[in-house]
Amino acid sequence: ASPLRIAVLAGDGIGQEVVPEGLRVLDAAARRFGIALQLDHFDFASCDYYLRHGEMLPANWKEQIGGHDAILFGAVGWPQTVPDHVSLWGSLLQFRREFDQYVNLRPAKLMPGVHAPLIKRDGSAYAPGEIDMLIVRENTEGEYSSIGGRMFAGTEREVVIQETVMSRIGVDRVLRYAFELARSRPRKHLTSATKSNGISITMPYWDERVQAMSADYPDVMRDQFHIDILTAHFVQRPHTFDVVVASNLFGDILSDLGPACCGTIGIAPSANLNPERRFPSLFEPVHGSAPDIAGKGIANPIAQIWSAALMLDFLGHREAHDAILRAIETVLAPKSGAPRTPDLGGTATTADLGRAVAECI
Amino acid sequence: ASPLRIAVLAGDGIGQEVVPEGLRVLDAAARRFGIALQLDHFDFASCDYYLRHGEMLPANWKEQIGGHDAILFGAVGWPQTVPDHVSLWGSLLQFRREFDQYVNLRPAKLMPGVHAPLIKRDGSAYAPGEIDMLIVRENTEGEYSSIGGRMFAGTEREVVIQETVMSRIGVDRVLRYAFELARSRPRKHLTSATKSNGISITMPYWDERVQAMSADYPDVMRDQFHIDILTAHFVQRPHTFDVVVASNLFGDILSDLGPACCGTIGIAPSANLNPERRFPSLFEPVHGSAPDIAGKGIANPIAQIWSAALMLDFLGHREAHDAILRAIETVLAPKSGAPRTPDLGGTATTADLGRAVAECI
Ligand SMILES: CC(C)[C@H](C(=O)O)[C@@H](O)C(=O)O
Ligand SMILES: CC(C)[C@H](C(=O)O)[C@@H](O)C(=O)O
Repeated sequence: ASPLRIAVLAGDGIGQEVVPEGLRVLDAAARRFGIALQLDHFDFASCDYYLRHGEMLPANWKEQIGGHDAILFGAVGWPQTVPDHVSLWGSLLQFRREFDQYVNLRPAKLMPGVHAPLIKRDGSAYAPGEIDMLIVRENTEGEYSSIGGRMFAGTEREVVIQETVMSRIGVDRVLRYAFELARSRPRKHLTSATKSNGISITMPYWDERVQAMSADYPDVMRDQFHIDILTAHFVQRPHTFDVVVASNLFGDILSDLGPACCGTIGIAPSANLNPERRFPSLFEPVHGSAPDIAGKGIANPIAQIWSAALMLDFLGHREAHDAILRAIETVLAPKSGAPRTPDLGGTATTADLGRAVAECI
Repeated sequence: ASPLRIAVLAGDGIGQEVVPEGLRVLDAAARRFGIALQLDHFDFASCDYYLRHGEMLPANWKEQIGGHDAILFGAVGWPQTVPDHVSLWGSLLQFRREFDQYVNLRPAKLMPGVHAPLIKRDGSAYAPGEIDMLIVRENTEGEYSSIGGRMFAGTEREVVIQETVMSRIGVDRVLRYAFELARSRPRKHLTSATKSNGISITMPYWDERVQAMSADYPDVMRDQFHIDILTAHFVQRPHTFDVVVASNLFGDILSDLGPACCGTIGIAPSANLNPERRFPSLFEPVHGSAPDIAGKGIANPIAQIWSAALMLDFLGHREAHDAILRAIETVLAPKSGAPRTPDLGGTATTADLGRAVAECI
């Protein structure tokens, strides 16, 4: 079989440190399951590149990576030298939009050996696996819009405007994905995040499309909450959520909050999917470039490794995904004796933890 | 002295049940501190009113309540009969905008006797008062805009658009309030919630105004976080926040999440302020009309009572505010023997709890 062609973009900060560990584990899984991989490394989509070239991406970036099967991405952003909206809109957000990665799938699962910051009403702890949700985030439109501007700049009357844009095509396709995903899971439960009492045009539209589509999924249990109270429910009863579908901004928020409720966003992966595979999908940690710990070699590589597992799953290698997940769980387990990075309460390096996972495979 | 004129609007659902308890405690505090009150009750701004009159408010609502010193508000919304965006935009959101209540001040404080769902990294519990933040929410513009619409309705190309609008005047005045508030507190710490990496026009503008104003407040410690990671920090280290300032939508989210991190949104109060007192300010619980428990007489009235306390404080009666707060803390204290509503783990009624607080004053 021809090899899977993976474009590797490590980006900024700890992206440079965790991507090699993602690749280490990917390599181990590929060997074990006989998957042929071709890895192509690129240095663009980083602030370093920007400082050298004055833009985040070369003019022909679509030719360079558009034909790959998938993109393994680290993190981008280095606000000390390049403003975030420049670096992000110039790279990651371009990829999501131009490669039509309209689903951003983000698991939030309580893993063994991770300190969970939440306790139940009765004072007891959540058990590993008891919190297990999949956040499905719309990833190309909504609140992340490029339309708007500023008027009367520098005066008393200064005003800025930015549009939120939701299209029927854009909303329906991500809802369809979420309903199908909910149907495929044992609990068959879908929660929609909304804010139709305050955001009075776009959010009622979202609700309307959820309502319309639910007719096709009588077997899926459905509820909906305004985003404000939903964040409270995440803290108070996270175990009751299964699939959660949300707009671009609300999905962004919930996919940091969900993992935080599971103890750390340091291990949370994400899959930016073009489900039809017309364009490459992109796999990246939820965490960013973390300037505060970058360069120290202590970043937790699990999110990157788990993202690589999601990539294999998406490309048809479910068993390789499952093996990586088991390896992660084995290493994280409290009595594994495996090395732990500082965020997990240990003193190990990024590479120590990466090697431990690779060895488990 | 001429009496304080308070417009009382109980609204829908549990608003009808908790407002009488707010008034009971208000009355007790007024007696004790010799404050003359005139209470005027109104039945508009409720879905009942809407069903009878076809609108949420009478045409002359501004004449009816615009001259009062303050509005004590219950809750509005009854989605079974009136869509939320109709009932809210027809009442509460009108008040906030037309009475220019541009600051929405929302304390999130861990109270004694309330089960906190969070534990620290070392496994220990947070002590009452250890989480103590004030959320300052912009309350008249931003994401809660009334501009936008739908095109190509009912077709494949259907699209909805809604504008977020931030004005220099609108942003600066709420930031000024927040900086001053931070300066007045022992920790002198201000956190700004933003999302300038994704929401690329309005949010960088917000940051820019924070940056500009910070020059006037060299004594205020300042930090800023994107809303996604900030929700994670609320869960992981809520005790490190003091004053948190945010746009309308982000403030809405954080002011449910903050109280949830303190155990319940059932006791969280809010003050919708027109600081210059050109218009009446409005005081209301953060919780809504709660259709699921409405009519049972078991709603927790603390949020309403605390809101009444914030009202007295704003109207110049700090000592009455403090007395109510102490009464609330006394009643909530684990060994107080005072009645507790079901959300606090007891079986008491709304009125039982209201009476207990009133008796403490
Ligand atoms: C009811 C709703 C419109 C309102 C808001 O979003 O402002 C509420 O959630 C609040 O926080 O006061
Ligand atoms: C970096 C930022 C633009 C991005 C987003 O908001 O989408 C990030 O927070 C994420 O969740 O992938």
